[in-house]
Amino acid sequence: MSVASAFDTSLFRPTPQSVPPPNVSYAQKPLHGVPVNYHPLNPFTFILRAALIYPDKLALAHPDIHKPAFYSYSIWAQRIQNLAYALIQAGIRPGDRVAVLTPNSPMIADAHFGILAARAIITPINTRLNPSEVAYILDHSGSKLILVDQECSHLIPNAKVTIVVCHNSGRIGDPYEEFLSAGRIFSAEMGWAGLDVEPNEDTPAVLCYTSGTTGRPKGVLTTLRGSYLAAVANAFEAQITRDSLYLWVLPMFHAAGWTFPWANVFACAAQIIIRQVSYPEIWKHFLASGVTHYCGAPTVQIGIVNDPAACPLPRPISAIIAGSAPTAQVIGQLEQIGIKPVHVYGLTGRSLIPLRKTYGPFTRCYDQPSWTTLPLAERAKLMARQGQSFAIAQNVRVVYPPKHENDQDLVDVPKDGKTVGEIVTRGNIVMKEYFRDAEATRKAFRGGYFHSGDLAVMHPDGVLQILDRSKDIIISGGENASSLAIELELASHPHVLEVSVVARPHPKWGERPMAFVILRHEHIQKWAANHADFEVELKRHARSLLPGFACPEWVQVVDELPKTSTGKILKTDLRKVVAKL
Amino acid sequence: MSVASAFDTSLFRPTPQSVPPPNVSYAQKPLHGVPVNYHPLNPFTFILRAALIYPDKLALAHPDIHKPAFYSYSIWAQRIQNLAYALIQAGIRPGDRVAVLTPNSPMIADAHFGILAARAIITPINTRLNPSEVAYILDHSGSKLILVDQECSHLIPNAKVTIVVCHNSGRIGDPYEEFLSAGRIFSAEMGWAGLDVEPNEDTPAVLCYTSGTTGRPKGVLTTLRGSYLAAVANAFEAQITRDSLYLWVLPMFHAAGWTFPWANVFACAAQIIIRQVSYPEIWKHFLASGVTHYCGAPTVQIGIVNDPAACPLPRPISAIIAGSAPTAQVIGQLEQIGIKPVHVYGLTGRSLIPLRKTYGPFTRCYDQPSWTTLPLAERAKLMARQGQSFAIAQNVRVVYPPKHENDQDLVDVPKDGKTVGEIVTRGNIVMKEYFRDAEATRKAFRGGYFHSGDLAVMHPDGVLQILDRSKDIIISGGENASSLAIELELASHPHVLEVSVVARPHPKWGERPMAFVILRHEHIQKWAANHADFEVELKRHARSLLPGFACPEWVQVVDELPKTSTGKILKTDLRKVVAKL
Repeated sequence: MSVASAFDTSLFRPTPQSVPPPNVSYAQKPLHGVPVNYHPLNPFTFILRAALIYPDKLALAHPDIHKPAFYSYSIWAQRIQNLAYALIQAGIRPGDRVAVLTPNSPMIADAHFGILAARAIITPINTRLNPSEVAYILDHSGSKLILVDQECSHLIPNAKVTIVVCHNSGRIGDPYEEFLSAGRIFSAEMGWAGLDVEPNEDTPAVLCYTSGTTGRPKGVLTTLRGSYLAAVANAFEAQITRDSLYLWVLPMFHAAGWTFPWANVFACAAQIIIRQVSYPEIWKHFLASGVTHYCGAPTVQIGIVNDPAACPLPRPISAIIAGSAPTAQVIGQLEQIGIKPVHVYGLTGRSLIPLRKTYGPFTRCYDQPSWTTLPLAERAKLMARQGQSFAIAQNVRVVYPPKHENDQDLVDVPKDGKTVGEIVTRGNIVMKEYFRDAEATRKAFRGGYFHSGDLAVMHPDGVLQILDRSKDIIISGGENASSLAIELELASHPHVLEVSVVARPHPKWGERPMAFVILRHEHIQKWAANHADFEVELKRHARSLLPGFACPEWVQVVDELPKTSTGKILKTDLRKVVAKL
Repeated sequence: MSVASAFDTSLFRPTPQSVPPPNVSYAQKPLHGVPVNYHPLNPFTFILRAALIYPDKLALAHPDIHKPAFYSYSIWAQRIQNLAYALIQAGIRPGDRVAVLTPNSPMIADAHFGILAARAIITPINTRLNPSEVAYILDHSGSKLILVDQECSHLIPNAKVTIVVCHNSGRIGDPYEEFLSAGRIFSAEMGWAGLDVEPNEDTPAVLCYTSGTTGRPKGVLTTLRGSYLAAVANAFEAQITRDSLYLWVLPMFHAAGWTFPWANVFACAAQIIIRQVSYPEIWKHFLASGVTHYCGAPTVQIGIVNDPAACPLPRPISAIIAGSAPTAQVIGQLEQIGIKPVHVYGLTGRSLIPLRKTYGPFTRCYDQPSWTTLPLAERAKLMARQGQSFAIAQNVRVVYPPKHENDQDLVDVPKDGKTVGEIVTRGNIVMKEYFRDAEATRKAFRGGYFHSGDLAVMHPDGVLQILDRSKDIIISGGENASSLAIELELASHPHVLEVSVVARPHPKWGERPMAFVILRHEHIQKWAANHADFEVELKRHARSLLPGFACPEWVQVVDELPKTSTGKILKTDLRKVVAKL
């Protein structure tokens, strides 16, 4: 199926200011004083090449709203140019921060290019934050302007920031469209040649904020060079091409969409935007629109394979999975319906809201030729590991914890699959620094490596496997039990849909694991009247797979688990539940 | 078919020194004084990641010789490390040049990594040069050491250079193997961590020499950064993956194999080395080994599709075609048997021996969705154009010739498909400089762009098409006739296998085109006794397609055309023939 034919684009007309002039040129202003063989890497420039080569190809579709919008590459490029000029007219100068607060929308896709074209820094904000959290980020980042979806405008405080609201209509009268149109007028048709080129590729591109379960969120700065290289690596590893159609299941505000806003344009692919994780909408596009790729955390994959509409796909789709490890069940279910899992790991992983210390993935689990003959359960266990260095990433190590606060020595743990250490990495796709926090930067870069805070073992084949973040380790009778490892084993019970394990204080053992379980739909009835029997059953299952100290002491069946907007389980909320028991 | 199963690798045992130690580490020495988020781009590092992830996967096969050799990634990586230490032990220091003179062989593949790992510059030399030309290059480059295949050792002058001869056995007793083994001993098992990391990515990687039809060849220097980015772009554009099997039809000494020695390793693909362009050998591997990719000039494609063994392929193969433009016939024939042509253009193009001013391709002809419904002849004409900026390349322009020698202004020709200008480009995949020739560098970089010397027009859709190098333009009755355009039209005659057109002096018109034609095998008999009739026939064909001044005045049927080792037609030789008429 051709991408263009999947949508009825005839009812949409872009605003006149979105249409490029007939003599459009995609040449930038020449950069003086640099060698002919040097051009600073900048992911925004992908749009210039895509619009030059494929002006009429569908670039961006926003189909599932009241007023659908569809942009070809030449139209989209003009809108991005308009945004850059509009920002400059609004007083944005090189290095300024421009915030974006919106669910997935064309505006946040524009922002990944237009803000960089204006030489400013994009600051995406999670839409699930409360007004005071948003206010903190606006203040700490010093954002001068914010692009905000009308659904989120109530989150904006009475701040000194300039606010541009978007109604997502793509039509005349929409304040965002008026803003873009003003940019076109301001440009006086100078076009791309009228915008200064950022000469330094180490200039910050994105400022993302961590969740900070303790204390205030930290601002993570990443660079143009890193964003460019990570986007190219993602396009290569996911095998995105100009024939691909990427579906936006992952929120783009989440670690700059793991760089996929740029990766897709580098590949000249088309992108479909959906505003939230809606399984019926996802399945509609899987079956009718010709989707080839999407990204999502394991919980999203669980939702996809268990949706009533789930069925074998007519053509394979690649799912880039990060966050926690997908279980053997999920991998098996995905493969059965024709979804090819690509399991990657980045420091967006197990944190609660966007953490952007690397640029999306920096490891991937590379399946070996010899695995193809293994039974699924065995293969899935190997595939559930976080893997090895991603294309373009430098070396990833698992090292012993520091002996004292100023210990700069990094010593690798043995490759025994047992000794627990911390994952550290360095190189072009590691963050530049914590914004306005030299002390946190210094700590994070101990020994010349970036410290992930993720605990892992290194297997004899050189593949690393995350156990847990240190706060997720359960100290049970003096033994370190990984809640992640326990979850993986419990999830193998055929009646379990989803499970999360946290520590609960225990008078004798200090801590013991407590499991919160969602039952599979078809088994809910069976256990409805006797959750205690299911507890016995699951403990029996656990004992056959886990050492005693890692077996759950308590099992609670629940209807749902507390989750973030990106579908990750909020263990902090479960710990609050436990604290009250 | 799995790659591993295509070869009987059981009869080959690598030397003991090629086997890595049991505790092998692929971690490099830490680089001090650079930010944690910076690592200099260097294409040699691709081997470290490939060996880490796929230690036992076939990396390099050399099957069609008396003593076949097969190297897995871990074995190959160890040999590369041995080579680096051996070079250092032999006195090679950072920035030194190390020459390589060999047909395709494992040694030149090693050289693309091992010489860079020793922080030296690889200087590949064309095997078709004569001893005095080789002597000039060794002298001008100041090469301290040369790796030479025993077949080429007679080309080496009595120079002060250290010579390491390779018998291509891969076995103990081979001088090259002894050299590598000495490197292993010298390393004292310091391994990769014992080699200094080159901190500056703008350091030269390759020094290639041009042919210089007038005067001496020039040395073209390219950088680590450019080689890295170009290799990644080639892997992406050609869609090479870890499941790919690349066949070495193109000589690796030719512009560093268009960066494919690195691109294949970046992708963790396998590579088969054949020593020369042998069509039966190529077809054997197409049909029996599972080949997925190869590179070659159009003349090589003609040889492939017209070989007696040619037949529809069980699985598609991608052919990366550069040099002159493939004709509609060739494109049609390739597609009929299941070869997918990827037409690219780089400044390795129409020159006679390796010209390496860009890193292989910097444009590609991107087919548009709307072309799929066109008839082959029309589509092939569109596809025969050189195209638009390659992934990672910066903008490519066609500009008017300078008004005077110091004219620094570059003015684009109109996008009319008619006005002839020169192709210029700039950015990360343009050469750094001419080695020890500041004046030539200055001229080549006029106006801040690299000047290709290739003449072209820009079509209204922004796609450029090469007409000719200026010396290949025929000035016929005051009109500029492109020999390339004439060849494209003459090649459309069904009896023509291959054709080359050069200028021949004419008393009335100044110059007129003369065509040299090889007939298709099945039509040779028909015209054998009456070449004059064929001349009439071909001129009639030409008049139906070309303006009068561009029609050949003379047609000569020949059995073969003079060609370089890389299969490109030597027009200088044809001009010598014409001069004697």
